[in-house]
Amino acid sequence: MLSNIRIVLVEPSHPGNIGAAARAMKNMCLEHLYLVSPEKYPHADASARATGADDVLDAAVVTDSLQAAVADCTMVLGASARLRTLNWPQYDPRQAAEEASKASQTSRVAFVFGRERTGLTNEELDLCHYLVHIPCNEQFSSLNLAAAVQVLSYEIFVADQLKPREKIIEDIEIPANQLEMQRFYQHLENTLIKIDFLDPDQPKKLMRRLRRLYNRAQPEQTEINILRGILTAVDKGFEE
Amino acid sequence: MLSNIRIVLVEPSHPGNIGAAARAMKNMCLEHLYLVSPEKYPHADASARATGADDVLDAAVVTDSLQAAVADCTMVLGASARLRTLNWPQYDPRQAAEEASKASQTSRVAFVFGRERTGLTNEELDLCHYLVHIPCNEQFSSLNLAAAVQVLSYEIFVADQLKPREKIIEDIEIPANQLEMQRFYQHLENTLIKIDFLDPDQPKKLMRRLRRLYNRAQPEQTEINILRGILTAVDKGFEE
Repeated sequence: MLSNIRIVLVEPSHPGNIGAAARAMKNMCLEHLYLVSPEKYPHADASARATGADDVLDAAVVTDSLQAAVADCTMVLGASARLRTLNWPQYDPRQAAEEASKASQTSRVAFVFGRERTGLTNEELDLCHYLVHIPCNEQFSSLNLAAAVQVLSYEIFVADQLKPREKIIEDIEIPANQLEMQRFYQHLENTLIKIDFLDPDQPKKLMRRLRRLYNRAQPEQTEINILRGILTAVDKGFEE
Repeated sequence: MLSNIRIVLVEPSHPGNIGAAARAMKNMCLEHLYLVSPEKYPHADASARATGADDVLDAAVVTDSLQAAVADCTMVLGASARLRTLNWPQYDPRQAAEEASKASQTSRVAFVFGRERTGLTNEELDLCHYLVHIPCNEQFSSLNLAAAVQVLSYEIFVADQLKPREKIIEDIEIPANQLEMQRFYQHLENTLIKIDFLDPDQPKKLMRRLRRLYNRAQPEQTEINILRGILTAVDKGFEE
């Protein structure tokens, strides 16, 4: 579906930004770059910043109007630095990415980025179905062009992966079960008594605190084995 | 709360990336930039790319080790391009931002970015509680450094805006900071050698495993004091 999504840069003036945008896109599995009347393209600065995304950069489609760049798209989203007074349907990047992801299942979608200094003209905004505003510091709101492409490409990629992102723990090891934890705590308590750290007549809340600490870590079996190995080594020293 | 969050760049080689990172941060209301042994700083390229974020760039704190840059932080998140084989707790940017946002209500949080080419060393990863992986094209996964800072800063800003504003009523104790954790690990290692559990010539991955376990629990200061008290009691027994 990502192959149905394109990034359109309107009259980008810095070729470095074009290259960096290509790299940001490729990082997020986007490959279709459109350039509307770029000031300098192709250009060495663009290639330098693309580092490895030369294929995306070289395949960029150059057009002389935004209209031409989005003609075959059914959804056009315009990135906008400021909240327009115009009463335009507006998304944040996450919503925009979700909508684009849905639409891209059946048709082509364009994310449009305006000029570095002046953004999109009103005529160009007229071609957009929605505006996308990247939430940011209202006192310093102009993101670098490639940085804005990076944020939206990232959201598009995440939305495309569909599933809510769960915490990834590769190769989950077996967590210690309750019985193993109890045996560990018993061993720990015995050792603490043996080394005179815990007074069984005045235990206070020491064991409870330690339980809380280790329970929070949710130790794996292997880890509990290591900890018990340490306790056994300590025990030996105190028996001699 | 955003003022409790810092961005740490470890040995960045391109000054342009430092400037672009400063701009990305300021766009997202982050202001504390730390540079560990930057190759070129200050530098004209950094200033050029910062465009308007000179204040963040100029206020950057330079240190000569990652340890020094995160010493007073209670949560350290390391940006990692690849999924490490080691079984490390790993977040995606959204989860990481949410956790950081919560933690930053009471203490300092660091997001750490490694070198452009080689990332973070294993020793530097040992200082991290969590890894953060920006989901991306597995065939072209190396984001530009400043682009990675942009994505994470954006997620941090969004998480900060979304988080419930009510005060946490729970009686939060002060978490141990990185320096206290390092001292604890050093003490633990010494004691393990003393009791013949750890062979300094054949350390294998024991300390790394133990770090992972305790980092996961995010111990409070009081808990670290208890653990060090136990180690001291053990030390005494082995000196007699």
